[in-house]
Amino acid sequence: VAERESQIVLGIDPDPAALWPRSAREPVQGSPAEQAGAAVLDHCRALIDATAEACVAVKLQMACFERLKAPGWSALEAVVAHARAQGLLVIADGKRGDIPVSAAAYSQALVGATETPFGTVRGLGADLMTVNPLMGRDTIEPFVAAARDVGAGVLVLVRTSNPGAADIEDAKLEGGGAVWELVAQTVDALGRSGVGEAGLSDVGAVVGATVPGHLERARELMGRATFLLPGIGAQGGRVEELGPAFAPGRAGGLVTASRSIANAHQGKGGEPAAAARAEAERLRETAWALSDGVAAPFR
Amino acid sequence: VAERESQIVLGIDPDPAALWPRSAREPVQGSPAEQAGAAVLDHCRALIDATAEACVAVKLQMACFERLKAPGWSALEAVVAHARAQGLLVIADGKRGDIPVSAAAYSQALVGATETPFGTVRGLGADLMTVNPLMGRDTIEPFVAAARDVGAGVLVLVRTSNPGAADIEDAKLEGGGAVWELVAQTVDALGRSGVGEAGLSDVGAVVGATVPGHLERARELMGRATFLLPGIGAQGGRVEELGPAFAPGRAGGLVTASRSIANAHQGKGGEPAAAARAEAERLRETAWALSDGVAAPFR
Repeated sequence: VAERESQIVLGIDPDPAALWPRSAREPVQGSPAEQAGAAVLDHCRALIDATAEACVAVKLQMACFERLKAPGWSALEAVVAHARAQGLLVIADGKRGDIPVSAAAYSQALVGATETPFGTVRGLGADLMTVNPLMGRDTIEPFVAAARDVGAGVLVLVRTSNPGAADIEDAKLEGGGAVWELVAQTVDALGRSGVGEAGLSDVGAVVGATVPGHLERARELMGRATFLLPGIGAQGGRVEELGPAFAPGRAGGLVTASRSIANAHQGKGGEPAAAARAEAERLRETAWALSDGVAAPFR
Repeated sequence: VAERESQIVLGIDPDPAALWPRSAREPVQGSPAEQAGAAVLDHCRALIDATAEACVAVKLQMACFERLKAPGWSALEAVVAHARAQGLLVIADGKRGDIPVSAAAYSQALVGATETPFGTVRGLGADLMTVNPLMGRDTIEPFVAAARDVGAGVLVLVRTSNPGAADIEDAKLEGGGAVWELVAQTVDALGRSGVGEAGLSDVGAVVGATVPGHLERARELMGRATFLLPGIGAQGGRVEELGPAFAPGRAGGLVTASRSIANAHQGKGGEPAAAARAEAERLRETAWALSDGVAAPFR
């Protein structure tokens, strides 16, 4: 964040039926999934190239790749490599959660590796992965342990950006507080042993930007967590309301935007790449300026 | 269930480092992931062939395939085809959950299809998929809608089988009841419009067999839901305690077992296939006999 002066995460959730116009590249032969996988990869590379300078990370929506099955996973791997080559961190957004033995297997897929009789199979090599905490602490711990082993991190769903988040996450508990606040306490507890030089923990939280009123309380409960802040743009959230996220430092809040960047040309006209670059830069400037006033200095 | 006289679901969660001894098949060339994918597929086919007669479905733990990336997804597809050829239903156990647009994308991957400029990409073609309800009703609905479109179904995580399930799922709510009971009410509400000829809904629930005390209450709250019952065997649950699951009919409870079937030879000796077949058949007989006394007749 300090190096790139950016807290912007480029959300990548490609719809094969709504990609940017294709480059002049030779069309790929193969099944519909293979052709779509290649087209999705072209699109993602162009989107990354257009916006990388204004961003610090990409967030890959795994559902959008998985619907293309094996060719989708091949594209996913290639997008990770391309993002890295552009100096970006990679967030694998799969919102995984399962019993401990399966959580460990997901961790192998996303940040670790799998030992086989045929040699080691390296996973996706993500820097961060989103995790669903519903099934409890013993299902989050394997993700944290696997991430820590390789210097990666975890982003736990605490209070998401969709309207339905009110149903379960906001449900009030008998002893006071809401379900999401109970999750926040777990995030804080798991993260205490993983605070790094910058004062932030390797156990972060997803906190939707659509309900900024929750941010202050979230920061109170999770003083050292990096917040991934979805919901800007297409979902209605505004960067200007995210101040509390940056209290522990400028990297305390990562603002993720997907459709508002990739589809910026639809509203504003112009070339998709130029419009995406301009929108990413606008978000970068807004967040950077906002966090200037509230953030503790980098240590 | 009626046709096969079985409520047993074969859980498939292959570890490439602990597969059944390989067949005489020519070794595959390629990367470690490709070789491991081929070996995993061989193992899964052998496991299905050994136990299919005693089972009604397979449950594929997606994490175990995803850690082999694209070759893992290719193996996953081939395992689905093999299970179908053996007359088994397929449960995609990915415990997915996300904002509505991404939930729809996961549904395309698991039960639906994706339209692309290059033709339709068919998804995995599962009959049921497991869904994580934490993010609320609007994140479950796209899965239900997509499943209903193709005659498939959804299994919502209600009360899971791991010890940590007590942390969030069992948390007591201000108005009475626990978080899992609130989820159960949502399952029941979403499922009312999807009750079929057998009296069961296309919105089912995952209810761990490790806490049988919850089963009676779960059945009270979700009268028409099919319960997927994990936790038998390796996790300590016993088939004999699952009675309430079968109240709406014999298909009201599907008993899933993974390691206790695949690794039966480790405890009891003998060939892996024979031991697995014997264990699956033992579970089948036990559940069938148990449900004889409690289940309403098929309609």
